[in-house]
Amino acid sequence: MKFTIQRDQLMESVQNVMKAISSRTTIPILTGIKVEATTEGVKLTGSDSDITIESYIPAEEDGIVYVENIEPGSIVLQAKYFPDIVRKLPQKNVDIESDDKRNVTIKSGKAEFHLNGQDAEEYPQLPQLHTEDSFELPTDLLKNLIRQTVFAVSSSETRPILTGVHVQLVDEQLHFTATDSHRLASRKIPLKREGQGEIPAVVIPGKSLTELNKILDDSDEPIEISLTENQVLFRTKHLYFLSRLLDGNYPETSRLIPDQSKTVVKIDTKELLQSIDRASLLAKENRNNVVRLITQEGNQIEINGNSPEVGNVVEEVIADSIEGEELKISFSAKYMMDALKAVNYDQVKIEFTGAMRPFLIRPVDDEQILQLILPVRTY
Amino acid sequence: MKFTIQRDQLMESVQNVMKAISSRTTIPILTGIKVEATTEGVKLTGSDSDITIESYIPAEEDGIVYVENIEPGSIVLQAKYFPDIVRKLPQKNVDIESDDKRNVTIKSGKAEFHLNGQDAEEYPQLPQLHTEDSFELPTDLLKNLIRQTVFAVSSSETRPILTGVHVQLVDEQLHFTATDSHRLASRKIPLKREGQGEIPAVVIPGKSLTELNKILDDSDEPIEISLTENQVLFRTKHLYFLSRLLDGNYPETSRLIPDQSKTVVKIDTKELLQSIDRASLLAKENRNNVVRLITQEGNQIEINGNSPEVGNVVEEVIADSIEGEELKISFSAKYMMDALKAVNYDQVKIEFTGAMRPFLIRPVDDEQILQLILPVRTY
Repeated sequence: MKFTIQRDQLMESVQNVMKAISSRTTIPILTGIKVEATTEGVKLTGSDSDITIESYIPAEEDGIVYVENIEPGSIVLQAKYFPDIVRKLPQKNVDIESDDKRNVTIKSGKAEFHLNGQDAEEYPQLPQLHTEDSFELPTDLLKNLIRQTVFAVSSSETRPILTGVHVQLVDEQLHFTATDSHRLASRKIPLKREGQGEIPAVVIPGKSLTELNKILDDSDEPIEISLTENQVLFRTKHLYFLSRLLDGNYPETSRLIPDQSKTVVKIDTKELLQSIDRASLLAKENRNNVVRLITQEGNQIEINGNSPEVGNVVEEVIADSIEGEELKISFSAKYMMDALKAVNYDQVKIEFTGAMRPFLIRPVDDEQILQLILPVRTY
Repeated sequence: MKFTIQRDQLMESVQNVMKAISSRTTIPILTGIKVEATTEGVKLTGSDSDITIESYIPAEEDGIVYVENIEPGSIVLQAKYFPDIVRKLPQKNVDIESDDKRNVTIKSGKAEFHLNGQDAEEYPQLPQLHTEDSFELPTDLLKNLIRQTVFAVSSSETRPILTGVHVQLVDEQLHFTATDSHRLASRKIPLKREGQGEIPAVVIPGKSLTELNKILDDSDEPIEISLTENQVLFRTKHLYFLSRLLDGNYPETSRLIPDQSKTVVKIDTKELLQSIDRASLLAKENRNNVVRLITQEGNQIEINGNSPEVGNVVEEVIADSIEGEELKISFSAKYMMDALKAVNYDQVKIEFTGAMRPFLIRPVDDEQILQLILPVRTY
């Protein structure tokens, strides 16, 4: 194997596939990066067997040459060293070459690295995903769907299915839902597909979506999503991101969502968020940073936090409107701040059904984003 | 106590005094920040009893009002909460007030914090430093002196005196020296003082200088340094930084410095630094990241690193000149990189006296900066 490649393109690809590589894998060769050169370009692969990422650098694209002097072949290089070596190379061009004893030479300017490679034949064959059940989204919209839901997955393995995001396509609506059983985050978007066949409802591990979100650029370039019963593939022009799915039945969440409300508050998102952030400073001694919200006369709400040994904080926030019953309610400041950040609109509508019932947070004019939080019983 | 203060000025002062506060102190009240208001302004104090920092906010300066509505008094506030509270206050102005039961109210906009304060009378009296043995430096020059030496102090407590920087004023030269017995960093500057009396040679804890360096701005405003037998005080217009000194005799270091050399290399600092950085990538398996330097024909030097199980790296660097005997020498990549970064000149002169003897790194045209490294015996 032999090729000359642009250092910066190589670096970007290496950083992408590194997101899949864990030093704690039980399969030693997966601590490496597979490098494959063909006459069309260079492909890097990283995997921890749950997530597999391939990043492709074409030999030439849009008239720009990224890889040249290619002699096809493949090798596995230790991921512990390769990224730092590439980052610190002195010149824009890198020559990479491996001989038949798997000695790898990396040359740039007057610097020359010799590494012991591993046999690419020993690298696990990646599962090939065959499906016609695919659809496309703009990349930035997918990133929003992930960002607005994935924070609400469970971090506990007691119910493994809740560590994933439930994805379904029903009635031309793509629907992402995550819940850790104390809160729920959901987002729908309209989606018309050309293809035939049902798209199965699946549960994608939260960790996979978080890593995917880090790699994807904020662009409106399309990303293709293909689903089978046990895998999901995200594919852009030069990236191939494969994740296993979670096994099991996702709980029915629609019945958690109250269909009526007793108190409705419309309020500026940022003002409420900052006020809860301040109240949470003196709520840290309690488990979960519990703060309290109390409706008051004159469209005001009071937010307060209390930490008996340290002190307390109280703040009035003027709402745009308060309708319905008076209310005193306590909830996790963290859950509320996560939800308000996810909403992504200047003004939110919060619908309460009493101090003991879950409440809803939504943009005022958008029914597609929904955040639900269970209150905390404090008195 | 009562005053209204600009949030941003308060925040900056809080961040400065926090540098002295440790959560692991054995004196509980030192986990707090002392706040003192007088008609002239507000003073904050933080201390871990080794280091004490006072930061002063004048009521008015250059026609700008920073503090107003002052009722003099003092209180101690918990440092665990106060900085976050100040940072997140909603308005530019803050009202701070304490009553005779030490209940403290912090108000900004519609946010109101109530904190339990502690009695300022219980805060330890700070040692008053009486001395006429003081001198002044531009602040940025002091920062350079610290930066060019403090990294070489010992991190081990086996010889506590080596955890400090030796500071002496002899023959109108101010001299900073640090060594961990494997390397030495030293910088001299000419300094004429007005005052009478000897300036004692002292050893200032490396940690104190590191914290001081973080607080000081890169300005040419003067900083006053006062020394006594067991304390040093650094004073600027609004800052008072007091540190204890280390007890004991600092070793005589001048005899470590070879007065002749057998091989002299002049070379571009950055090229050598980057080449050693690359070589160190494959030297990590050895203790201390040892790399090797070999002089060659044609003003070239070879830098190499070797990690038997992973691979090796070799690089030629063209020197500006090589004079004297041929040389093969091994040394810690980290020490060499620290020294080259400290030199702060485009070109360095390295003076070797054989593979087993300490070598010197200096700017080509400046004898005031000196770095010394002991080589590693590898063959």
